[in-house]
Parts: sequence; structure tokens; C-alpha cells
Amino acid sequence: MILRPAARAELPDVLALLAGEETVVDPASVVVTEAYERAFAAIAADPRNELLVLVDGGLVLGCLQATYIPGLGKGGAERALFEAVRIRADRRGGGLGRDLMERAVARARGRGCALVQLTSDKRREAAHRFYASLGFARSHDGFKLAL
Amino acid sequence: MILRPAARAELPDVLALLAGEETVVDPASVVVTEAYERAFAAIAADPRNELLVLVDGGLVLGCLQATYIPGLGKGGAERALFEAVRIRADRRGGGLGRDLMERAVARARGRGCALVQLTSDKRREAAHRFYASLGFARSHDGFKLAL
Repeated sequence: MILRPAARAELPDVLALLAGEETVVDPASVVVTEAYERAFAAIAADPRNELLVLVDGGLVLGCLQATYIPGLGKGGAERALFEAVRIRADRRGGGLGRDLMERAVARARGRGCALVQLTSDKRREAAHRFYASLGFARSHDGFKLAL
Repeated sequence: MILRPAARAELPDVLALLAGEETVVDPASVVVTEAYERAFAAIAADPRNELLVLVDGGLVLGCLQATYIPGLGKGGAERALFEAVRIRADRRGGGLGRDLMERAVARARGRGCALVQLTSDKRREAAHRFYASLGFARSHDGFKLAL
């Protein structure tokens, strides 16, 4: 099992994970639009963004995007923001999510980040218990404005 | 009144705003450490980060940091994350916060962002009403892990 930046060839696998909240989506059925290509290229070229995949035997089982944000809080240290945290629908409940998160947190720590932050939909109580079990404090409310 | 990226000479003003949650802090009393210098330079050099200041007659009255994040959600569009939103303690309650936010949201929209997101400490009920009045949905919980 390894956690590493996704290769371009794995973009359909990641899009399938993101589309498959409740069921396994076949990566071959995913339409990779030009906008997704551009977004993938932008992430890959940016030293402060990583699309990370959890891979076992060539199979993409999980993903998350990490953004490393320079800032004036925390004495000037970077903070890491995690988005799009996902484990393949048929592989949940076996500790893969914990593995994914622990490896990604270690990566942020190794980079010198002072903080990891993420938001989770208020309806996802099981996810909240999971993040709390990893030591995260549910200290904030998350606000979104669609443009 | 304008909203624009902070100049290096305004770094003490921004640090004073961030230090002055309840009272006005004199920028001349702020110690600009090397770490703050580095963080400011990192933000200024990054095309996906902006330290924005709301300025009136040469006076820095408010600030926020915007991070523009490429991603695979929202059809591949960027999202904007706002952090370190602050209005000078002695100038609150007069609409400056609304002005700051509306200008920053317009900036994100002009860039093509599909979403603006931020988190706010659960104890800050007045801030939550303010964000709701700007159209933000309080849909998520925000989790933080100090490293």
C-alpha cells in the first residue's frame, strides 16, 4: 500500500472514486472532460497542491487532495487543507480511510505544516466520528457560497 | 475604499489586525519575524494566494487571505478559500466587513471560481449570522488537527 501523487493515467480512477459516493463506479465509464484535464494539470504543476492516491497492487483504493497554504497565522507556518477525501465504496470499514489519513497527515507534518484542516458535510456523522478518532477537533463551522 | 493585494510595507498593519481581535494593536509594536517575512513573500509570489487589504485613505482597515484551489469537484472549476478575515476592532459594525467580503467574493467570481468557502469558530455566533446574511450556507463542520 502506498500513498503518492496520482499519475495522469489514474485520473479516471480518481474521478470514479469521487463520483462513487455509495457504489463502485467503473473508471472506463467516466468522461474525462477538458476541464478535468486542465484541473489535473494545474494540480500536478502546483508545488502547493497534490492529488494523492492510495494504491494497492496497481488498484486506486482512495484519494484526497492536499493544498499547502502559506499564511500569517501559526507563526508563519504552512497549513494543509484536505479536500475530496474518498475510499472506494466496496472497501470501506477495513481501516483504509485511517491509513489514507495517517499517511497524508504524516506527509503534511514532514513538510513542516503546523495544522491540517478539512470540512465535512454536517449530515455525515460517521465521518465526523472518524475524524475525531484521528485527533481532529470539530471546532469550526464550515460556510459555502456557490458562485 | 479599495481592496487590493497588500504591499510589503503593510505587513505590520496586517499582523496588527490579526493580533487585535478585540482591541486596536499599534502596527509599530508588531515584531515582524523572519517566518512572517517568508510567509508574506510566499503568498505574494504565488498566483493562487492573495493577502488582500481593505484600504481607506492609506489606512488598512481590513484584510483577508484568499487561496484559489484547482480541483476535480465543481466540473473542474477553482474554489476560493478565505482565511484570516479581519476588520480593525474600532471600525466594526459599520458595514466594512460586508464591503470586504463582497469585494473579495466579486474578485473570486471574476477569476472563474465556482465556490467560496471559509470556516468560523463555533463560538462566533455573530460572525455566523454575518456570513449567512451574505448568502453563505452553514453546511459543514470544520475539523482542525494541530501538528
